[in-house]
Amino acid sequence: MSRLESAIRRLSAQRACLNAACAMIGAQPGTVLEFGLGNGRTYDHLREKLPGRDIYVFERRVQAHPDCIPDSEHLFEGDFFACLPEAIARLKGTAVLVHCDTGTGDKAASCALAVRLAEAMLPLLCEGAVICSDQPIEHAHLHALPLPEGVAVGRYFMYRFAPPAG
Amino acid sequence: MSRLESAIRRLSAQRACLNAACAMIGAQPGTVLEFGLGNGRTYDHLREKLPGRDIYVFERRVQAHPDCIPDSEHLFEGDFFACLPEAIARLKGTAVLVHCDTGTGDKAASCALAVRLAEAMLPLLCEGAVICSDQPIEHAHLHALPLPEGVAVGRYFMYRFAPPAG
Repeated sequence: MSRLESAIRRLSAQRACLNAACAMIGAQPGTVLEFGLGNGRTYDHLREKLPGRDIYVFERRVQAHPDCIPDSEHLFEGDFFACLPEAIARLKGTAVLVHCDTGTGDKAASCALAVRLAEAMLPLLCEGAVICSDQPIEHAHLHALPLPEGVAVGRYFMYRFAPPAG
Repeated sequence: MSRLESAIRRLSAQRACLNAACAMIGAQPGTVLEFGLGNGRTYDHLREKLPGRDIYVFERRVQAHPDCIPDSEHLFEGDFFACLPEAIARLKGTAVLVHCDTGTGDKAASCALAVRLAEAMLPLLCEGAVICSDQPIEHAHLHALPLPEGVAVGRYFMYRFAPPAG
């Protein structure tokens, strides 16, 4: 498959998963988190789909289109793990939707990062939160959701957060 | 429209136009030219669709995926206009398919460049050559072709080269 074809499938899968996640959360109150701003495409999509929502972005080093950069109150710039304590202090248990788009060319490192990051961000999530991810995340409290029509298994991933009872 | 949506439409339009152009040239002998390598996605697509064809790439400064960079014999690196004399000396009248993907964020400058470039590259084209372009090109010898199904007018452009008689 050419890189052009692959890019189209990847972006289409992102769009389908984000749209499905937006529909799932409906009017449920809560914040939205994006880990990995990149050029700002999916952030732009989320804010268009979810007007009025507080969308918080985590990005190591911002390099997005100038019109796709959140204001400083909604941006955690720097190492994800270094930013999480402040984020948890401010936003604990509020996130209803999370988009993780943190993969790089290094597949093994990307997978490992996604799992570590998922574990570390759990305090930010509310029960039932929906997670869209470009990497698979194996975690006891994250349950795989069926993918939207047209998204091939393994191309994108969706989970629902079910914390342990009690 | 979000930047995600816009990117999907743009890449899908590229794919549709390139595929249509490949079908149009069929087995007609000739070279393929790409102006603007970018990250190499469309170059990768063209070489997959057109195995065995000589594909020549013009790029000011190569920054593509390492596996999407042509060998030095098929690469003209530097200012397009500075490279054209050598290209014309080697490839005059051979090109059956040209892909111009030279646009930047500056719409007016991109349009002006596309027209200047089209005029300057004409000696490379064979009669009936098909041009796909991310910019509109108004030129007496380039006749607009109908776009493939699903490609909105103005999103991508296709032309056929008909040189003046005689």
